[in-house]
Amino acid sequence: MAKPTPLSGFPEWLPPQRMIEQYVEERLRRTFELYGFAPLETRAAEPLDQLLRKGETSQEVYLLRRLQSDASERSEPRSREQEAAADASDDALGLHFDLTVPFARYVLENAGKLQFPFRRYQIQKAWRGERPQVGRYREFRQADIDVVDRGDLPFHYDVEMALVAADALAGLPVPSVRIRTNNRKVCEGFYRGVGVPDPPAALRAVDKLDKIGPAAVVDLLVGTAGATDAQAKACLALGEINTPDTSFVDRVRALGVTDPLLDEGLAELTAVVDAAREHAPGVVVADLSIARGLDYYTGTVYEIALTGFSMSVGAGGRYDNLASAGTERYPGVGISIGVTRLLGLLFGQDALAVTRSVPTCVLVALSTEDARPAADRTAAALRARGIPVEVAPSADKYGKQIRFAERRGIPFVWFPASPGSGSADSGSADSVKDIRSGEQVDADAASWMPPESDLWPVVTASP
Amino acid sequence: MAKPTPLSGFPEWLPPQRMIEQYVEERLRRTFELYGFAPLETRAAEPLDQLLRKGETSQEVYLLRRLQSDASERSEPRSREQEAAADASDDALGLHFDLTVPFARYVLENAGKLQFPFRRYQIQKAWRGERPQVGRYREFRQADIDVVDRGDLPFHYDVEMALVAADALAGLPVPSVRIRTNNRKVCEGFYRGVGVPDPPAALRAVDKLDKIGPAAVVDLLVGTAGATDAQAKACLALGEINTPDTSFVDRVRALGVTDPLLDEGLAELTAVVDAAREHAPGVVVADLSIARGLDYYTGTVYEIALTGFSMSVGAGGRYDNLASAGTERYPGVGISIGVTRLLGLLFGQDALAVTRSVPTCVLVALSTEDARPAADRTAAALRARGIPVEVAPSADKYGKQIRFAERRGIPFVWFPASPGSGSADSGSADSVKDIRSGEQVDADAASWMPPESDLWPVVTASP
Repeated sequence: MAKPTPLSGFPEWLPPQRMIEQYVEERLRRTFELYGFAPLETRAAEPLDQLLRKGETSQEVYLLRRLQSDASERSEPRSREQEAAADASDDALGLHFDLTVPFARYVLENAGKLQFPFRRYQIQKAWRGERPQVGRYREFRQADIDVVDRGDLPFHYDVEMALVAADALAGLPVPSVRIRTNNRKVCEGFYRGVGVPDPPAALRAVDKLDKIGPAAVVDLLVGTAGATDAQAKACLALGEINTPDTSFVDRVRALGVTDPLLDEGLAELTAVVDAAREHAPGVVVADLSIARGLDYYTGTVYEIALTGFSMSVGAGGRYDNLASAGTERYPGVGISIGVTRLLGLLFGQDALAVTRSVPTCVLVALSTEDARPAADRTAAALRARGIPVEVAPSADKYGKQIRFAERRGIPFVWFPASPGSGSADSGSADSVKDIRSGEQVDADAASWMPPESDLWPVVTASP
Repeated sequence: MAKPTPLSGFPEWLPPQRMIEQYVEERLRRTFELYGFAPLETRAAEPLDQLLRKGETSQEVYLLRRLQSDASERSEPRSREQEAAADASDDALGLHFDLTVPFARYVLENAGKLQFPFRRYQIQKAWRGERPQVGRYREFRQADIDVVDRGDLPFHYDVEMALVAADALAGLPVPSVRIRTNNRKVCEGFYRGVGVPDPPAALRAVDKLDKIGPAAVVDLLVGTAGATDAQAKACLALGEINTPDTSFVDRVRALGVTDPLLDEGLAELTAVVDAAREHAPGVVVADLSIARGLDYYTGTVYEIALTGFSMSVGAGGRYDNLASAGTERYPGVGISIGVTRLLGLLFGQDALAVTRSVPTCVLVALSTEDARPAADRTAAALRARGIPVEVAPSADKYGKQIRFAERRGIPFVWFPASPGSGSADSGSADSVKDIRSGEQVDADAASWMPPESDLWPVVTASP
């Protein structure tokens, strides 16, 4: 077989990077659970009609098809009816492209078994068949938190989501984050107040500000939203407002536009920015250019970036109409952290490190293969006390075994008592050597413990 | 939107079950890491040619296809050449059906960056488009451990794999396990020694013993492996041998067949069973009927079952020829635990329980919405000391808030100090109530701690 090559857009880490990823995932989980979010996992596949409800992303869906349904040979013959029944459930499946759409579907499907308001976190992979480019992946892991309620969802959850996300990211060895927030009611109310004929089209136009620049946005506003030149400039002026505090309100008022929906949006955005200043000072800012591409958001929207990186590593918002069945409505609000995106950016700058490439803290050395059963017993005694241990793969000179440990960053090598062995230092007792300092001491597998900081690999920001 | 219905074969758990699954996964991880296995994750998609190398399972592969390649509308036009280049990498992708084939591919691809022998664990989902039936899933999670080396892999790893799997499962609140082991060299050497013309065909025939019974196996041996009646009966006699110790050797010898490969297999199987008797008494037995369907196994094979359940929850073996590039060979041995299968069986009997349905240990009650900022501060103080806390979703009578906690199994409700409030017991200090006992005490958010056993949900075998 020829040496395989990587698939573009499908990242795979080396074990030390995977250790860092697991550490990040665990820290996120722990913060989410401290806020009472329950864990959830949904299947990777969704019916295509669910996935295609969302507009833009629907073109990026990966469809699933069973190879078997084409296969002519089959161990047991089936009737055409059985065939049809077996395949019907598969025919229209695709891989989910985010965790919000599957979550909304799950809530509807299991509403009778859940307690509302329902808080859950979900850390899973998602897939998008878009063209691979820097920071874009076809397979990626997301960490989502959401709260949904039946009927109405109190607004204070919009405040809480930003605080949980800020807290979760503050617990990681990553650069500080900034959460830019806006409220769609501010934009829609303003556009309406200003007299733009098609506010949703205006929202889509302003969302492109970062990509195409102000002049092109003005053209779009005139061309697609039916705005006059003066209206377009007012919309642009709104998008240019961003403040670290609630002073954005005065700046919006100074534009001289009034509308009840605008007032509602300004009050909500003020509440988010105000509460965040107490619990996470400097993290949450108002940025009236944020619109978010996905069309299910109805109020608060968030976008998260790391200091020093322009690309966002998280986003979310309030969605009042994503899930409903009959007359029952399940409004929600949530934030998604792009774990793969975050790690891809930081790995790209070697910004994260782990103290060793294996979990192993102690390597039990082996002078002869006959000593393996005794070495296994030593290893078992150490493991029983929570110490990660490997026994040497084969009997060899102790110098070679020390190099085996060194290459992996294993800090300690254990030398079994064996008076006749090649180890100069070992007497009639077992001994253990810190191969970094060279210090070697007599040790008993029933009681010896490494320093706490050496027990497991430690993840840190690179110095 | 209509209420969605489950997809057959794609299990989804409720949050308490997902808590149990996460607990199981963490325990497995911890044991694997105590043995020095490093974490790894491979992408979900593999090139189809990799997936189709494995014979039987290849019919169950899910193919991936980008919906986008069909879409006629597109935001930016692409040339036909761009189109072809962008899609080429996708056209021949499928979802992996196990974690061994992707692992073998990963080792070849990254051999230059790995340290050998390379020990890794991998806990991920896999997909098989087979017909759903009890205990069979189309989407399922597996927990795999493997060791691969470059050139040759010492045999003692075959012993270690069984011990790690036994240890990992012994750490779970599940029925005791039995690991049935065999060695393909025993079967192939025996068939050869007995004179069966086609030993691999004989292996496939005997593998069906459980499903089709001895008479049909004899027919198959005669019909497909070219065996005489007497040879077929000898093969069957071999498959009927199973012993909890190494006495299987005498029973095989009593059949009067000799062959060098048989001798080698018997020695290897003896080593596995012997070592296991010391480290995991009663767990590993020799069972000469075990063959394993996958054709990449070359020596030791394992099959794991829970006491009281006939369906296997794990399997594995030695594969000397799965991964090779040019003249370099990467033999391996590993075991895969079927996490979804295991949990499906136990959930089906309500055999596992968790003490509550949310991580939350304390609900901070709220008498008026004005008190929310203070309640948020109390919650933050408790969380800072590692206590999972939720604040009540809305201000309400304390009785209703206690019922909110009860329904979720949250053990404690925190009442902020508020002399004028409706709570009869609360004075000028905050107080916390254990809603199971009704006991209520004054408490300070800066110092109060729940009992250790209440801090996080606890997973147990059901009483």
